[in-house]
Amino acid sequence: MLFDHYRQIRQQTEALCQPLLVEDYVIQSMDDVSPPKWHLAHVSWFFETFILQKYLPGYQPYQEQFACLFNSYYKGVGKPLPRPRRGLLSRPSVTEIYRYRAYVDEHMAALLATLPEHSYSTALQELVTLGLNHEQQHQELLLTDIKHIFAQNPLQPVYQEKTAVLENQEAAPLQWIDFPESETGIGYAGSGFHFDNEVPRHRVLIPAFSLANRLVTSGEYLQFIDDGGYENPLFWLSDGWAFSRKASWQAPLYWQKIDDRWHVMTLHGLQPLVKDQPVCHVSYYEANAFAAWAGKRLPTEMEWEYSADESRIAGGNFLESGCFHPRPAAGDDMLQQFGDLWEWTQSPYIPYPGYRPAPGAIGEYNGKFMCNQMVLRGGSCATPAGHIRKTYRNFFYPHNRWQFMGIRLADDR
Amino acid sequence: MLFDHYRQIRQQTEALCQPLLVEDYVIQSMDDVSPPKWHLAHVSWFFETFILQKYLPGYQPYQEQFACLFNSYYKGVGKPLPRPRRGLLSRPSVTEIYRYRAYVDEHMAALLATLPEHSYSTALQELVTLGLNHEQQHQELLLTDIKHIFAQNPLQPVYQEKTAVLENQEAAPLQWIDFPESETGIGYAGSGFHFDNEVPRHRVLIPAFSLANRLVTSGEYLQFIDDGGYENPLFWLSDGWAFSRKASWQAPLYWQKIDDRWHVMTLHGLQPLVKDQPVCHVSYYEANAFAAWAGKRLPTEMEWEYSADESRIAGGNFLESGCFHPRPAAGDDMLQQFGDLWEWTQSPYIPYPGYRPAPGAIGEYNGKFMCNQMVLRGGSCATPAGHIRKTYRNFFYPHNRWQFMGIRLADDR
Amino acid sequence: MLFDHYRQIRQQTEALCQPLLVEDYVIQSMDDVSPPKWHLAHVSWFFETFILQKYLPGYQPYQEQFACLFNSYYKGVGKPLPRPRRGLLSRPSVTEIYRYRAYVDEHMAALLATLPEHSYSTALQELVTLGLNHEQQHQELLLTDIKHIFAQNPLQPVYQEKTAVLENQEAAPLQWIDFPESETGIGYAGSGFHFDNEVPRHRVLIPAFSLANRLVTSGEYLQFIDDGGYENPLFWLSDGWAFSRKASWQAPLYWQKIDDRWHVMTLHGLQPLVKDQPVCHVSYYEANAFAAWAGKRLPTEMEWEYSADESRIAGGNFLESGCFHPRPAAGDDMLQQFGDLWEWTQSPYIPYPGYRPAPGAIGEYNGKFMCNQMVLRGGSCATPAGHIRKTYRNFFYPHNRWQFMGIRLADDR
Amino acid sequence: MLFDHYRQIRQQTEALCQPLLVEDYVIQSMDDVSPPKWHLAHVSWFFETFILQKYLPGYQPYQEQFACLFNSYYKGVGKPLPRPRRGLLSRPSVTEIYRYRAYVDEHMAALLATLPEHSYSTALQELVTLGLNHEQQHQELLLTDIKHIFAQNPLQPVYQEKTAVLENQEAAPLQWIDFPESETGIGYAGSGFHFDNEVPRHRVLIPAFSLANRLVTSGEYLQFIDDGGYENPLFWLSDGWAFSRKASWQAPLYWQKIDDRWHVMTLHGLQPLVKDQPVCHVSYYEANAFAAWAGKRLPTEMEWEYSADESRIAGGNFLESGCFHPRPAAGDDMLQQFGDLWEWTQSPYIPYPGYRPAPGAIGEYNGKFMCNQMVLRGGSCATPAGHIRKTYRNFFYPHNRWQFMGIRLADDR
Repeated sequence: MLFDHYRQIRQQTEALCQPLLVEDYVIQSMDDVSPPKWHLAHVSWFFETFILQKYLPGYQPYQEQFACLFNSYYKGVGKPLPRPRRGLLSRPSVTEIYRYRAYVDEHMAALLATLPEHSYSTALQELVTLGLNHEQQHQELLLTDIKHIFAQNPLQPVYQEKTAVLENQEAAPLQWIDFPESETGIGYAGSGFHFDNEVPRHRVLIPAFSLANRLVTSGEYLQFIDDGGYENPLFWLSDGWAFSRKASWQAPLYWQKIDDRWHVMTLHGLQPLVKDQPVCHVSYYEANAFAAWAGKRLPTEMEWEYSADESRIAGGNFLESGCFHPRPAAGDDMLQQFGDLWEWTQSPYIPYPGYRPAPGAIGEYNGKFMCNQMVLRGGSCATPAGHIRKTYRNFFYPHNRWQFMGIRLADDR
Repeated sequence: MLFDHYRQIRQQTEALCQPLLVEDYVIQSMDDVSPPKWHLAHVSWFFETFILQKYLPGYQPYQEQFACLFNSYYKGVGKPLPRPRRGLLSRPSVTEIYRYRAYVDEHMAALLATLPEHSYSTALQELVTLGLNHEQQHQELLLTDIKHIFAQNPLQPVYQEKTAVLENQEAAPLQWIDFPESETGIGYAGSGFHFDNEVPRHRVLIPAFSLANRLVTSGEYLQFIDDGGYENPLFWLSDGWAFSRKASWQAPLYWQKIDDRWHVMTLHGLQPLVKDQPVCHVSYYEANAFAAWAGKRLPTEMEWEYSADESRIAGGNFLESGCFHPRPAAGDDMLQQFGDLWEWTQSPYIPYPGYRPAPGAIGEYNGKFMCNQMVLRGGSCATPAGHIRKTYRNFFYPHNRWQFMGIRLADDR
Repeated sequence: MLFDHYRQIRQQTEALCQPLLVEDYVIQSMDDVSPPKWHLAHVSWFFETFILQKYLPGYQPYQEQFACLFNSYYKGVGKPLPRPRRGLLSRPSVTEIYRYRAYVDEHMAALLATLPEHSYSTALQELVTLGLNHEQQHQELLLTDIKHIFAQNPLQPVYQEKTAVLENQEAAPLQWIDFPESETGIGYAGSGFHFDNEVPRHRVLIPAFSLANRLVTSGEYLQFIDDGGYENPLFWLSDGWAFSRKASWQAPLYWQKIDDRWHVMTLHGLQPLVKDQPVCHVSYYEANAFAAWAGKRLPTEMEWEYSADESRIAGGNFLESGCFHPRPAAGDDMLQQFGDLWEWTQSPYIPYPGYRPAPGAIGEYNGKFMCNQMVLRGGSCATPAGHIRKTYRNFFYPHNRWQFMGIRLADDR
Repeated sequence: MLFDHYRQIRQQTEALCQPLLVEDYVIQSMDDVSPPKWHLAHVSWFFETFILQKYLPGYQPYQEQFACLFNSYYKGVGKPLPRPRRGLLSRPSVTEIYRYRAYVDEHMAALLATLPEHSYSTALQELVTLGLNHEQQHQELLLTDIKHIFAQNPLQPVYQEKTAVLENQEAAPLQWIDFPESETGIGYAGSGFHFDNEVPRHRVLIPAFSLANRLVTSGEYLQFIDDGGYENPLFWLSDGWAFSRKASWQAPLYWQKIDDRWHVMTLHGLQPLVKDQPVCHVSYYEANAFAAWAGKRLPTEMEWEYSADESRIAGGNFLESGCFHPRPAAGDDMLQQFGDLWEWTQSPYIPYPGYRPAPGAIGEYNGKFMCNQMVLRGGSCATPAGHIRKTYRNFFYPHNRWQFMGIRLADDR
């Protein structure tokens, strides 16, 4: 039943907030971050605005002003609160926002329950599924934003105690897996849910290439640092060098040297650096510089998609594992391609040939962001497993670091 | 008893926070504003650092890291958290901060109670009194910061329901009171508590002058606006004009036009503009421009002090009145000189002749701010009545507007 | 003879500076612009550093410090002067810089003349040709920078009197030319000079598409403006909307409304807007918004290259025409594809598969800029005709407007 | 004859520009600096606007648009070009601006010559004298701006070869001169020319104080640096510390360490630091921090004026000495009070009691700057000797350093 799925995902969101104090819900630690309570309300506003107001006769919005407060960027729907002001709102209270969620859930239950399962209009089903995928995206953002909020605090709060699976373990050795030149289809082909940026499926030519069997480790990245990687402009893209200098980058986000030993802020609090874990929270600029230093390159998104075996999603380190941190690579063959960390590709985020955004406000979901951002693939330890696909295209600016982002190397053959 | 006084002031601070939700304690709505919970902790840190650690043998600080988190600017005492980052801290929680206050209070009780009243060292007594005056300053800041925080919120929260005394009432007519040329003493002369910036008392020559009997009203200020005051550079100081243009000022802070009628955000929520109330939340730049437009000038701080009759503090509209807003002038003679609004003077905040800051970190209290700021006099509706004196010198940057600041005109004779 | 070619291009550069006063050579009107005298020196520094110092035994640099002053960005070669400081240098004087050019020319003559023509090392020939192409690029920049400099001046100086060919003339009607789905090679294939970003040539699949037969005209763009194009976020990329709002864009660069009539600043001074001329000096953001408003899209660089017929370079409106402004489209078939204006494509500037930058400082020529920029194709009225190829890839940031940039629409079939 | 005086001062201005190349006239090296050609034109615009257009019947302005280009800040007279854009104007050329000067001079000659000397209207005489004093102020700015422009250039151009009088010489020993408590008149009292900010003369009470007999030397300042003066916040005003950190100040402006030895950029080019010369180009923040470090304070402007003996102007190191640099103190008694360097006082620049700006645009000369700036007294090696008075009040922002500014210490008695 669709509503069961709805209920499960909505509960998952709230479960992720269990460790929070009321105060934690309020903070916006940088413009990119939203306060947790804003996430909780925004995903509900999505259901209210695009579904309840349209499909549930007589529906009364919980509070008129929420349309302004919790609209993220849909300029076709009223006038959203400027993003950097999300952290200025103490009201509505956290309690009030949970009440808002309950109100929306109650009406969604009514909407979805009163109709026989198969009489759902396709458009409604699609919108609910879009709303749920949207909420899953915000589950990941909730975790990365909480991490960023906690990392600003000299008290270094712990979101969750460390689990045994993160104990030290040797990473699988680096190996190169070869792929032949090919002509292949790229983009979503099935009949299930997918975002509009994954289609149209289209054919591309891919030259022969090699792909590393696992993510770059913290230990390997440390060699780049120790070799002066952050001081040598020749490894860097021009914009990357300028940004890195201005921001005084010396290491990935959340790394800090204490008494000459590297530590890393995690959702388990401050931890000594574990060299066999994948390096995490690096920007595209850093990923690209590391690859240049290593004499390799980053994969294209076509190479990545062509090489990915969707059956491996099953064993991946996703949100449900409860680790909330990438684990050392273990096993043979292609490792970590799904879960652990989003992998930077060298592909700018642009539309596939023939792409057209959906009409109306929903059409603002993806298309207008197709400029200045880079594609990442594969999901992370903060991504719900049920949310990922091999054709899934995530995207961030080349300077962004606060998502669970890592590096897989590629090479020409 | 000193401790009774201590307890009363500490309770007053907490009483001011009664209307707040936990979420309200966390917000920093601009760099000048501190989150309410930061105020609560900082004033306690002051007692802990400058008194308990020095005078109470064996005292253990509540939490080592609070020294960094809640130090405001005393560079002589550790390394304070940069001011703009105060709003990034969800932890320690509000509950924890109240616990911190209780811990400090308990030890202050022990320190002050175990000694016979008259054996207090003078230094200790002075420090406790300084700490209490410091806390009173933060009571005023608490109110002005809460006002600023609420004013950012499109929901326009109400701190306190409006009281009857604010109902419309005609302001007393404007009159000019003349003062002859004189040689007089300026600065604190008694033996009670005073800040170091109020001494040394020294003699000055004051030419004859006239002073308005009351504050400028909103209605009078509206004439300035309607006469194009914000569009005419000839009324403005050069820096004021530049700042005002850049900030797009069109009216005092918290004024907003709704359907062509002016409204004002107050601690009682959004209210229609009351023309007989004093105009409030204007910068020095605006006060000066208004005076130029009116063909008058602002008083010097010497004129103000010379003209002030301290016996009138008693009837003033201070924090204890519970109005939290300036009231229309009522009565004869000199009105509103104490309470209602801080009055901008044309005097830059500089040391009195012979001024020397106190040695050590306490010496950072005032002296280092004696540049680029202007003196304000008389206290406001957010100032505790027991905190003010005729020699009291408040000071803010000429562009600041978020305090309860108003305008009294002066003129040469 | 290579040296004849060298001399001709060097003289061309100086000829472009004939209309300048000494004062005009000094100005840097924004960070992107370089003072004309800097261009004159920098292109000479290129020959000095990469050729004379390496190939001419005993060569003494004209002045040691020029290596710092006139290095553009080659971080592998000393420490370049920060770009925004180029306009702070009154010395060396213009006379001195012409002396520097003569000195370099004299030694280049010696280097190229003393060797029998066919004994040139290939590397030297290649470097000289690269240096000449580099100088041609700066010829274009000289013109666009002079235009920008003059446009800041309320006196609106004239670089050159208007020529008859710019007199009003009706633009050819808009037509759509269809191209079938195809597999084709993209990138430079011959044995002549080309930049490293044009190779490796590689095969791509291109779906069927249509291309407008000419550039968008000012009159067509005016309809977009009059239809509220600059006020409607739904036409814009997210970053484009944000940038456009912040920069208060209301029209293309150099457009100004005087007494309600549009005028345009050109190299012929301020001129009334000519609706049949191609719209010029629009950013990628504006080009993309215009295309969205028109229900079309921009071409990809592959589509552009596939559709381009290199034999049409001959008749194009290039620098040599002396117009220094785009002309109304005239004729049948595909028009204006070479010359008139650089055409924004929807393709981000990224490396072709298998791309490797050249080793050493020369390798900084292109590769490190392959991020955050968009490809433009076809050359402009400021490009030397001998400089362009159908595989030529120009690139600018999506917000840049000061080059001669225009719009050609494309569509899916 | 007034016109002789006019001619002499106008020629003096042009003589100061003799060492310049055309290129040097164009540069604006920071917002505070104006291009030399702008200074040349602006002072002429002053005569044209306030005198010729009013007093010479039938006068035609040289060029209408100059009213916009060369108006500095008189918002009552048209719309001035924004200050930071002065360096964007290559036209009018230097030649043209000298033509403009000649045109104005010719008409001024006509205006002043045709009338018998004593029939001058007082208003005209006053305006011409104001215009000449205005031009003298710009003579000083010309020198300080040229110094700043040259100092940006890695070629470190020389404005004038060093003169013998700057050769090393021991500074007179530091002595303290005592002044008793007094009641005295402050401000201009005579009937000659003076600026409106020097009046009304008024009586003040000055407590007893001591004044150093000479300026602080570079050697003394070096001790402050070597003692960690730039690293210790306790010496600094709060705003000074913040500014200094942000600007990364480690020494006065124009000081640079080369191979571990201090050098100073001067109008004679780069020179080794001379310890006996007065320290120069320090901000108020630095002057104040130095005084705090030394256990002293800066004088008030009243103390300075009271202690100054105008007869000593005669021997001072002013512009006419041709040194263009401060000299070591030589002699007994009070030294260097006139000439050498402007002396920072601890007095904010505010109006004297009863001050009223002149009516009309001329009234913008001084009054509107009476906020946020500090008073300096005594003139410098770049001030024309005939321009200074003991009542002369110069003023700059506390962070400004590019004028010839130094430190004289004071103390309470």
